[in-house]
Amino acid sequence: MIAQKIILNENRNVTLTAYIQEVDGEFGFNKRPAMLVIPGGGYAMCSDREADPVAMAYLKAGYQAFVLRYTCTPKGKWPLPLMDYEQAMDQIVENSETWHVDVDKIAVVGFSAGGHLAACAATVAEHKPAAAVLVYPAVLKDICDMCQPSMPYPHEHVTPATCPCFLVAARDDRTVDISNSLRMELALAENGVAFESHIYSYGGHGFSTGEDWIITNSVCPRLPRWIPDSIEWLGEIMGKLTRGGFTEPVRAGSMNGNFTPVLSVDCTLSHLLKQSDEAQTVLAPMYAAIEAVAKARQFSTEGLMTAVGNNTAREIMEMVQIPAEAIAEIDKALHRIVNNLEG
Amino acid sequence: MIAQKIILNENRNVTLTAYIQEVDGEFGFNKRPAMLVIPGGGYAMCSDREADPVAMAYLKAGYQAFVLRYTCTPKGKWPLPLMDYEQAMDQIVENSETWHVDVDKIAVVGFSAGGHLAACAATVAEHKPAAAVLVYPAVLKDICDMCQPSMPYPHEHVTPATCPCFLVAARDDRTVDISNSLRMELALAENGVAFESHIYSYGGHGFSTGEDWIITNSVCPRLPRWIPDSIEWLGEIMGKLTRGGFTEPVRAGSMNGNFTPVLSVDCTLSHLLKQSDEAQTVLAPMYAAIEAVAKARQFSTEGLMTAVGNNTAREIMEMVQIPAEAIAEIDKALHRIVNNLEG
Amino acid sequence: MIAQKIILNENRNVTLTAYIQEVDGEFGFNKRPAMLVIPGGGYAMCSDREADPVAMAYLKAGYQAFVLRYTCTPKGKWPLPLMDYEQAMDQIVENSETWHVDVDKIAVVGFSAGGHLAACAATVAEHKPAAAVLVYPAVLKDICDMCQPSMPYPHEHVTPATCPCFLVAARDDRTVDISNSLRMELALAENGVAFESHIYSYGGHGFSTGEDWIITNSVCPRLPRWIPDSIEWLGEIMGKLTRGGFTEPVRAGSMNGNFTPVLSVDCTLSHLLKQSDEAQTVLAPMYAAIEAVAKARQFSTEGLMTAVGNNTAREIMEMVQIPAEAIAEIDKALHRIVNNLEG
Amino acid sequence: MIAQKIILNENRNVTLTAYIQEVDGEFGFNKRPAMLVIPGGGYAMCSDREADPVAMAYLKAGYQAFVLRYTCTPKGKWPLPLMDYEQAMDQIVENSETWHVDVDKIAVVGFSAGGHLAACAATVAEHKPAAAVLVYPAVLKDICDMCQPSMPYPHEHVTPATCPCFLVAARDDRTVDISNSLRMELALAENGVAFESHIYSYGGHGFSTGEDWIITNSVCPRLPRWIPDSIEWLGEIMGKLTRGGFTEPVRAGSMNGNFTPVLSVDCTLSHLLKQSDEAQTVLAPMYAAIEAVAKARQFSTEGLMTAVGNNTAREIMEMVQIPAEAIAEIDKALHRIVNNLEG
Repeated sequence: MIAQKIILNENRNVTLTAYIQEVDGEFGFNKRPAMLVIPGGGYAMCSDREADPVAMAYLKAGYQAFVLRYTCTPKGKWPLPLMDYEQAMDQIVENSETWHVDVDKIAVVGFSAGGHLAACAATVAEHKPAAAVLVYPAVLKDICDMCQPSMPYPHEHVTPATCPCFLVAARDDRTVDISNSLRMELALAENGVAFESHIYSYGGHGFSTGEDWIITNSVCPRLPRWIPDSIEWLGEIMGKLTRGGFTEPVRAGSMNGNFTPVLSVDCTLSHLLKQSDEAQTVLAPMYAAIEAVAKARQFSTEGLMTAVGNNTAREIMEMVQIPAEAIAEIDKALHRIVNNLEG
Repeated sequence: MIAQKIILNENRNVTLTAYIQEVDGEFGFNKRPAMLVIPGGGYAMCSDREADPVAMAYLKAGYQAFVLRYTCTPKGKWPLPLMDYEQAMDQIVENSETWHVDVDKIAVVGFSAGGHLAACAATVAEHKPAAAVLVYPAVLKDICDMCQPSMPYPHEHVTPATCPCFLVAARDDRTVDISNSLRMELALAENGVAFESHIYSYGGHGFSTGEDWIITNSVCPRLPRWIPDSIEWLGEIMGKLTRGGFTEPVRAGSMNGNFTPVLSVDCTLSHLLKQSDEAQTVLAPMYAAIEAVAKARQFSTEGLMTAVGNNTAREIMEMVQIPAEAIAEIDKALHRIVNNLEG
Repeated sequence: MIAQKIILNENRNVTLTAYIQEVDGEFGFNKRPAMLVIPGGGYAMCSDREADPVAMAYLKAGYQAFVLRYTCTPKGKWPLPLMDYEQAMDQIVENSETWHVDVDKIAVVGFSAGGHLAACAATVAEHKPAAAVLVYPAVLKDICDMCQPSMPYPHEHVTPATCPCFLVAARDDRTVDISNSLRMELALAENGVAFESHIYSYGGHGFSTGEDWIITNSVCPRLPRWIPDSIEWLGEIMGKLTRGGFTEPVRAGSMNGNFTPVLSVDCTLSHLLKQSDEAQTVLAPMYAAIEAVAKARQFSTEGLMTAVGNNTAREIMEMVQIPAEAIAEIDKALHRIVNNLEG
Repeated sequence: MIAQKIILNENRNVTLTAYIQEVDGEFGFNKRPAMLVIPGGGYAMCSDREADPVAMAYLKAGYQAFVLRYTCTPKGKWPLPLMDYEQAMDQIVENSETWHVDVDKIAVVGFSAGGHLAACAATVAEHKPAAAVLVYPAVLKDICDMCQPSMPYPHEHVTPATCPCFLVAARDDRTVDISNSLRMELALAENGVAFESHIYSYGGHGFSTGEDWIITNSVCPRLPRWIPDSIEWLGEIMGKLTRGGFTEPVRAGSMNGNFTPVLSVDCTLSHLLKQSDEAQTVLAPMYAAIEAVAKARQFSTEGLMTAVGNNTAREIMEMVQIPAEAIAEIDKALHRIVNNLEG
């Protein structure tokens, strides 16, 4: 493995450290996924405990790992840290051949203020990561304003295009209140973005990987599992690295098709019900099948429609055993109809 | 182990099944903790997959386990299920000697509609459990009204007296939207109630223990860990059963003392700052110490006060090394001052 | 779940306790696997800590669970405990319809003296279990003779027909020396029997499931995982219970076909090399392919043959890409040739 | 982290790669434990899959990690690989200040042929490691002679001074038969050396860390846990690294004091019974206490002595509640008596 430190901005102490593992030969693949580690420190410093030790964890899992040390006060203020992030991503993409990085599989992990920066990467940055791991992230106005004025509050910028997120925090965090993570999750839920979240009963703030040699507070024994759990989750979202190359992802970044420009069978029933008459005509076979089921089981059709309202048309049509070709045809027809996002 | 089925109400099919393990002899203790299992089923049925299999899991962990089958439509409506719960708790308490149950260590675990009932147990019931495990619980108006009209929405009834909760759900639940769990967590956070939460990326609705022989959907591989995790958490909250009896709990049900009738050093700084002049006088030594620290490190006093605002007075005074006896004296003085909850 | 205590022999205090879970309905299967729990106690008692708590663990995993309390001194001696075991198995098989047990999937788990009895079940009993979990089992002469004279030493009775075993012990066991488990493993290895083994650095003797409420010694934190690990392993050997019934096993009880009456492509190369000229003729295509590979890579043919000597003919022929139909034909031809076990 | 490649011998391609993490500052300690990784490859090559990926795992756990690429055929033969090992250890010890290594906490991990070399490090080398992790190690004559003639068979060189070992292998290893691990364990058991062992039901040979991106065979799902398990075990043997420095080890490398030059209360009862009359006189209070217990419980004294024969005198005296000071005095007296190792 090669360790390389690249100075992104000398005046502002901005650096990108690259840890690059081998490919080919015995390994049987020539691209690896990448993880960009963004340590915290209230935008006043970059914590060493949230830098290399985190990189090591993802290196072990087969990732190329990068540590970004970004602009901190008093060297500079927002939006400089975000610009440092963009520059780091530029570097990784530009060197992707040399560094054996699959550019579609670059994730970020950020802690505290770095969690804020990672959440901004997921929402407002130009270079969007494939997935973001947010560890006790600063999100809400109170804490953001305390760090630096004029920073965005990431939960306000979540859209259906936000990348999938994995959130980790401790309930007893006295520095960044747990409501920061909860509000971020609510925003992801409202926008149909995929996520996973683990809020541990105790661990305080700044536990990093949660390992004995890093922690300063007592942490609950379940907490250090967030690292292997996040790795397993990233494999579901981006595909897993194996000797034969990457497997297909088993989960999509969006929970349904409600937010795409045109309709599809991956929209939910409740969303489709609010669309144009044209859409309703296309979906007539599904409605008929639902009615038949309701009749057979003596349910009210309306009640049944409400009960499965959050299911996608695809899921419902599979349940009522409409043949795969018929589903494919309905999907094709829906793709010709513009999605009315207002519903 | 003895298995016993008690009919609580014959007409409405309400039963309490008790699984009672031995004590004394080789075991070295004479009381066990208890878990009351409340299966789901939209208040239209009680699912077998969320009944005995869950009881087995807590039996293995040393608990006495009870399964409540409560009133479902069309046999009856809310508040009958809640009354069934109260009757079940009455039974457990009344038989606690015979059943070797420590009445201070009775927890509940509920699923879906049963999660709603368990959340009501935690908030509006007369017999409050020591802790509640809420698995894909129905909480919000939409889903509650669909089950039965006039049921309480538990998140609206959370108070600082609500028992600690452990929440489990899957992000892709199409039946009970993930916002149900998130809103419940926010209510717990706002009321200073202890909790832990795991939202898994996929698993759908109704996964119960998540084991292969129970699940009907595909679940993410991390999901089945919620059972051992909840057991570990319950041990932190209620104390762990060992051969020598129960250990002391390592975590309190409340995050701080902000909600008790009188003040204490377990109130947070930001809460104490909003109290009477009398309180400020008592706390003068703490303020002086904070100021000294700020001066020494060239911080603004105000900034430092904001940064540690969510810490308790006890935590702050320990950080600035005020002697234990002095802290105890300040605590005693604060206990004589009524807590102004409005702040 | 139903709990039922059956008296097998009143004078000798021999009982079989049956814990029977439901099938059908929501469960989607009508047979479960079964686990017969055999507690320890030096053949002088049956420990409660190694009885019900163990049954609970397998119940949770979907098993029907049975606890055998067998003849102990001074009520009687060997071979009475073995006869009690046979009687218990008779009961389970006879009642398999009522008890919803798949008779091909009955496993045993035994502890200490009960581990001796379980190892005898695996080797010398008439009713062989499908798999045996042996926890700090007594195996060797010293400890066996101390319990009761004239008992068999199970490692001396291991044959290729012995069922797969899962062994668990602690290195610092002062009562049953760790060499008991090691000698049993060696016997299994020499007879090509499948096994898995976990020897934990500390835990002493008698830790049962290793949970806090059961242990009397300090145990290493990895130790309590033997229960879920054994369940996962049993699923590999016997097939896993799912809603759709049992999956196919992913592992066989034997490591190869070296011990069956006739030859097959599942025999190892080193074993086949010692067989008749007829066998060598059948295997000529494989030998030719190995020679070709050796030539191509500039290895000595003999060296390559030695290096893959423990591989089965099937594995080798797949490696050198002999077509599946050709392998099937060779297998068919080998099945007509008697296996010379002396080699 | 710094990555540095040191050429130990240019002609024979022998290199030591050092991965050195920071200390001090936020970390709160100035020495780390070290892990020397010894890859396998039949002494004909050093496998990349058993080199850096293994180093990453221990780096994550806080170790300084080193990879040794040793002499392979045709560049040279045994004992050159052992000499390379000694040279690598020299380097680590000499640079321990610069590399922030605690020289008392240097462990080795070896795979296959590298497992042979690590086992030689533990037994016949001059620089003994503090602990050795042996992964599918080559130990027995057959496999050792196939690699290179004249190599030692490590199990024949185990003595009470051999360092604690952690053994990992798969039952279905066709390259290095499982009996290699079992014979090594027996030798450790016979010499009172501490060890832990995990033999997984399947995984074949060469699985390295067992992670998806490394394995070439199918491995059982429990197998990849050997890495975190070995780390936890190393912490028990060498002490755990925490912010305040190392904790005390919780386990000794020897199971008892039977092999030290003089006697102690950490010798086992059965060993002490074979010592001089002088020793028996010192131990008289213990014998009297055992006799009293036997009488009280109506056991035979001889039977009780046999039953606790593997317990140390200390353990027995604590059980029979001889006061701590009395035990200390007996220990002091025993230390004056030479240990008769022949018994």
